[in-house]
Amino acid sequence: MIIPTLADMLIAHERIKPHIHRTPVLTSRVMDELSGAELFFKCENFQKAGAFKARGASNAVFGLSDAEAAKGVATHSSGNHGTCLSYAAGRRGIPCTVVMPRTAPQAKKDAVRGYGGRVVECEPSTTSREAVFAEVVAETGAEFVHPYNDPRVIAGQGTCSKELIEQVDGLDAVIAPIGGGGMISGSCLTLSALAPKIRIYAAEPEQADDAYRSFKAGHIIADDAPNTIADGLKVPLKDLTWHFVSHHVTDIFTASEEEIIAAMKLTWKHMKIVMEPSCAVPLATILKNRDVFAGKRVGVIITGGNVDLDKLPWQ
Amino acid sequence: MIIPTLADMLIAHERIKPHIHRTPVLTSRVMDELSGAELFFKCENFQKAGAFKARGASNAVFGLSDAEAAKGVATHSSGNHGTCLSYAAGRRGIPCTVVMPRTAPQAKKDAVRGYGGRVVECEPSTTSREAVFAEVVAETGAEFVHPYNDPRVIAGQGTCSKELIEQVDGLDAVIAPIGGGGMISGSCLTLSALAPKIRIYAAEPEQADDAYRSFKAGHIIADDAPNTIADGLKVPLKDLTWHFVSHHVTDIFTASEEEIIAAMKLTWKHMKIVMEPSCAVPLATILKNRDVFAGKRVGVIITGGNVDLDKLPWQ
Repeated sequence: MIIPTLADMLIAHERIKPHIHRTPVLTSRVMDELSGAELFFKCENFQKAGAFKARGASNAVFGLSDAEAAKGVATHSSGNHGTCLSYAAGRRGIPCTVVMPRTAPQAKKDAVRGYGGRVVECEPSTTSREAVFAEVVAETGAEFVHPYNDPRVIAGQGTCSKELIEQVDGLDAVIAPIGGGGMISGSCLTLSALAPKIRIYAAEPEQADDAYRSFKAGHIIADDAPNTIADGLKVPLKDLTWHFVSHHVTDIFTASEEEIIAAMKLTWKHMKIVMEPSCAVPLATILKNRDVFAGKRVGVIITGGNVDLDKLPWQ
Repeated sequence: MIIPTLADMLIAHERIKPHIHRTPVLTSRVMDELSGAELFFKCENFQKAGAFKARGASNAVFGLSDAEAAKGVATHSSGNHGTCLSYAAGRRGIPCTVVMPRTAPQAKKDAVRGYGGRVVECEPSTTSREAVFAEVVAETGAEFVHPYNDPRVIAGQGTCSKELIEQVDGLDAVIAPIGGGGMISGSCLTLSALAPKIRIYAAEPEQADDAYRSFKAGHIIADDAPNTIADGLKVPLKDLTWHFVSHHVTDIFTASEEEIIAAMKLTWKHMKIVMEPSCAVPLATILKNRDVFAGKRVGVIITGGNVDLDKLPWQ
């Protein structure tokens, strides 16, 4: 296990700057009144390819030697990581293969292809995915970029919190959703070194609460069959992300599906931004844990905006 | 007819600055590729109370003498002007009455009340509205602030284009939706004086094309019964707004309902912003008039974000 360092994150930021947006931080009087806190929303829904994962993917892709890069990159993901890896590979002009269940939404396949990546379909099972992925790597020699359990990816995600503390002074806390833990780990990497007084909280759907249960138990517990509208958050922690979560996270809070949907609609209505259900989990937990957040200056990471507009969860 | 001047607009900007947002200008690689132009979206959907009309309403309210202000303000509007007048009156701490058809959406009534305004219901007819409104004014002595045919309102709306040309250099054109013509008139007021080389275009739904037909005929033609998803654009031009349109607008383009809905969905999908159907009309006309806009730097005014999330037009 290679744990990324502050230097890795700083190098990542210099490396990826030409390929990512320094996303804006939005505030909202209504949200402040509802929460009793001062909330600063770091809007990665406006990021290149629509999600913070463009940061980690770009760091992995642009950190390869020319010889490595020539063989391309590969991953398995039916979510934003696949799209963002394809985006980054497209920027460098190298091949990218994404293994995806044949049952994945057409829009996700189209997004990978839209940036020039190749989609290879597998059956919707871990066995099939691993077998198909091994074939892809054997055939291409492509570099595997894991969606989150990869030091290059975590160092890249850490650049988001670096920008946030440059943009907002005096934060008391930062909160982000947790699935596999890439964004939270990057935030831990950056904040524990550069702003150790800022508390780091993770927010998770009740119906996919493996990180919460792992945190309370003190060791990784995998979910059996997580099922949540916040579909980016179904994946489990791995050794690298568990390292950061167990060492640096102050607490993990959960929210019900109803609370997540209400917080999502509230944000769309009052802040006029399109964001994924996953991004609403932090706000949902802030609103139900006033004792923790009221009176505090809180950074809230809005992780992505790639939502299916034809299937909004309140309809 | 009192025609507002550049000085009125400049005074308006100083007057309303504490009460409005200097809204951001967003760009999008996807939108530039689709249009062949460089598009700069001035995001008044992020404006206070969710619409550019906070500018004109604030100018009218904060320009009143204390004696006038004590009697409050009144208007008739079932749209953003009512909400924004209530917002501005609330900021000054004076009464605001909005006459609305009893059939208006509950959300619009709630929005007026949310800022402290009073809603007085009338029957959904011009006769009833005028009678009820006359009673309100007789009873309160409130100052009438027309939604658009008012020099104070037009001077306030003109501050939007002032910010836009401060934020973006070298624009070739500015385009905005046209209903009653308040935003377009304000843009004409500002740009004809400060940046006369910038062409001003208006965009209108085919199904509410009274401004288009008036412009072509050379005199005001009112629509009979306009019916469009872009419900903010159903109102007709009046003498003041016709003055600006007839003197300073280069051309008016129209778009079909299908084109408007497609442009709206495209913006939500790629720019991750929530905006009203009206705001999509300019983009729809840009995409169908490539000969006019390709290769140009174009400011596009996104007028508001107060959309009913339970009734999206593509569903």
